[in-house]
Formats: sequence, structure tokens, C-alpha cells
Amino acid sequence: MELLIGTRRWSSWSLRPWLALKRTGTPFTETLIALRQENNATYEAIRPVSRSGLVPALKDGELVVWDSLAICEYLAERFPAAKLWPDDPVARAMGRSASAEMHSGFQALRQECPMAIDLEPRQADLSEATSKNVARITELWNELLGRFGGPFLLGDWSIADAFYAPVASRFRTYGIKPTGAAGAYVATILETPEFLEWEAAARAE
Amino acid sequence: MELLIGTRRWSSWSLRPWLALKRTGTPFTETLIALRQENNATYEAIRPVSRSGLVPALKDGELVVWDSLAICEYLAERFPAAKLWPDDPVARAMGRSASAEMHSGFQALRQECPMAIDLEPRQADLSEATSKNVARITELWNELLGRFGGPFLLGDWSIADAFYAPVASRFRTYGIKPTGAAGAYVATILETPEFLEWEAAARAE
Repeated sequence: MELLIGTRRWSSWSLRPWLALKRTGTPFTETLIALRQENNATYEAIRPVSRSGLVPALKDGELVVWDSLAICEYLAERFPAAKLWPDDPVARAMGRSASAEMHSGFQALRQECPMAIDLEPRQADLSEATSKNVARITELWNELLGRFGGPFLLGDWSIADAFYAPVASRFRTYGIKPTGAAGAYVATILETPEFLEWEAAARAE
Repeated sequence: MELLIGTRRWSSWSLRPWLALKRTGTPFTETLIALRQENNATYEAIRPVSRSGLVPALKDGELVVWDSLAICEYLAERFPAAKLWPDDPVARAMGRSASAEMHSGFQALRQECPMAIDLEPRQADLSEATSKNVARITELWNELLGRFGGPFLLGDWSIADAFYAPVASRFRTYGIKPTGAAGAYVATILETPEFLEWEAAARAE
């Protein structure tokens, strides 16, 4: 398998399926495409592999899976022993809802507080729209952590944690401290061996 | 089961899981929340059911599934006989990629050409960003229709068609005529009994 990823310190979308793929334990190659190149060069570099022109993309033989959430779902099916989704259908439905809410939403947070793993943490002033995103994410995390007992959103690690890992990184970078169990959850995510490995590679880029 | 939906002529997000739920054949109640109310009233009306404050949401007993894609995945698992996803893992992975690309993307098209089922079709001038979205969607449809043989994106109807049904409606409304098999696909989508039922209800609102 081959995973096409973007510049690690910025590419929140690449981090998510990379974490899921790591959790499967299967060997894979990483192909790095530099983001933010001039003259559309990033897009042109991705297009021969993935027609959407976006990272991430997973190659498995002839098959290309070309979206972060679709890759995670594909891995969950292909590696059932890794339990990337929980067996309980209710927990799975809630985890998918949380992941999909991130996948399509929180635009203000994403634009105002882009993932930047190399940045020195600082206290950012947040717009009202971003503050609302933070409040909603904090509420969601606290509800899931309360319901499933932690330390991860659905109890054990799942794709939902992959989806919120870049948010945890942003919260640290921009000095956002969520209340309740969500505060400890940020630390839990940022201390997983897989995130630490990505972070070290991001800082070495 | 109960599906919370928004104003039908505008709510592209509600249309998607509604189509999937119709395909299962299971009886369900629809609860309509008027979109675009003043003073945050839409959000306040949704919050007691769905904490995201957004439609759609599916209630199944005590469980609330609160995102369009998560609802579709939930229904695919709960009603396997409806074959909302194809059995072939490659087709399923490509269908999920296409659906997720829509779920997180095509912002320009969504902002410039919002779904408005009640509008008289007209020839719209498209921005460069929207034209690029249209070109990508056309390319994607033609590739999937070519690979799986049509008449739907993966051959038989699937969740991927639910995800692009609002796009077909927009293409008609804004006079966008995609090339190749994608042109016929727009008509195919808009003539399914389920879409016609939604459309009639939207016009009667």
C-alpha cells in the first residue's frame, strides 16, 4: 500500500488516514507531495495518482481511494482486527457522525487556526465564529468521553480520534484549553505514539 | 424512525439521507424544520434533537445520528438488503470517495449555485472556481459511469447517487449541461421516483 500525503506540519487531511493506517500495523510507503507550491504545481503533482488533485490518496494495487474519510472506512473494512470502528453499532454511528461533522464543518476554525505543527504555541484571539466551533467541539468531546468513559472518544481509539487529532494539535498551537474531560483528551491524543511519530517527521521536514 | 429535515427546496443535506431512507422501504416520519429563520430560530429548533444544530438528523429509538453521510452509512448497515452500497469492495471504496469528495468539497458550486428546486431554470454565468467544480464533477461522473456501465454512478443506485442528486438539481436550475454520459446521468437522477417525490413536496411547501 502507498499513502500519498501532503507537507506533514500543515496537512491535517493527510494525518487522519495516516493515523488509521498506522493502527492497522500493515507496512506501507509514504509519498510526500509538498503543499502550497506555486503555479498549481501541487495539484499537478497529485493528479497522476488522484484525479481530485487533493491529498490524501491511498493506493492499494490498482485501486485508488481518494478522500480521508473514505480511506479510513476502506481500512476499517480491510483490516477488521484493527477495530478502527467499534463493534457496537450505536458507538459506530456516533463516531461516524462526529467524524463527518468534522469532515464537512468547522470552517472558521480551519481557516483561522490552520494546523501548523512547527509553530510555537501562543494565545490566539479567536473570532466569534471560531469560538462557536470550539464550544461545539468541546461539547461533543465531553459528551462522547462521558458516555463511553474515555480515554478516547468512543472508549478505545477509533477513526473519530483520527478525525479530531488535527484539532487537538490546533488547540495546543493556538492556546485553546477546552473545559472538562476534553482538556485531558487533547493531551491524550497528542501523546499517542502514532501522533508523536507524525509530529517528529513534521518537525524534521 | 424519524428523519429531521430542512426546507425541502433548499436542503441539499436533507435530501441525501432521505433518498437513502426511501430506498430501504422502511416506514419513517419526517419532521420539517424551516431553514433561514430569523434570530437563530432554526438552530434552536434543531438543538433539542441534534446537538450539532444542523439538519439532517435521524432518530432510531434512543440513538441520534446527526450527519448526512453518517446517516447513510448507518442505513447501509441496518438495511443490508437495500444494498445502499455495492457488494464489491472496490466499487464501494470509489463510491465512498466520490461521496466524501462532495461532503467536504465543491464550496464554490455550493455557494454560487445553492439548491433551489422551486427556481425556474436559467442560464447562469459561473465563476472560474465554480466552473472548475463543474469540470471535476463531470469528469468524476463520466469516469464512474464508464467504469461501472451506468445508469447510476456505481451501476445500480447507491449512496453516491444520493450525494450527487442535489448537484443534478443545481445543474438543471443553473443551466449547466455536463458533457458525455454525465449529461444523461443528470436526467436519470432527476427522474427517479424518489427524487420526483421530494421535488413535488418541495414545490408544495
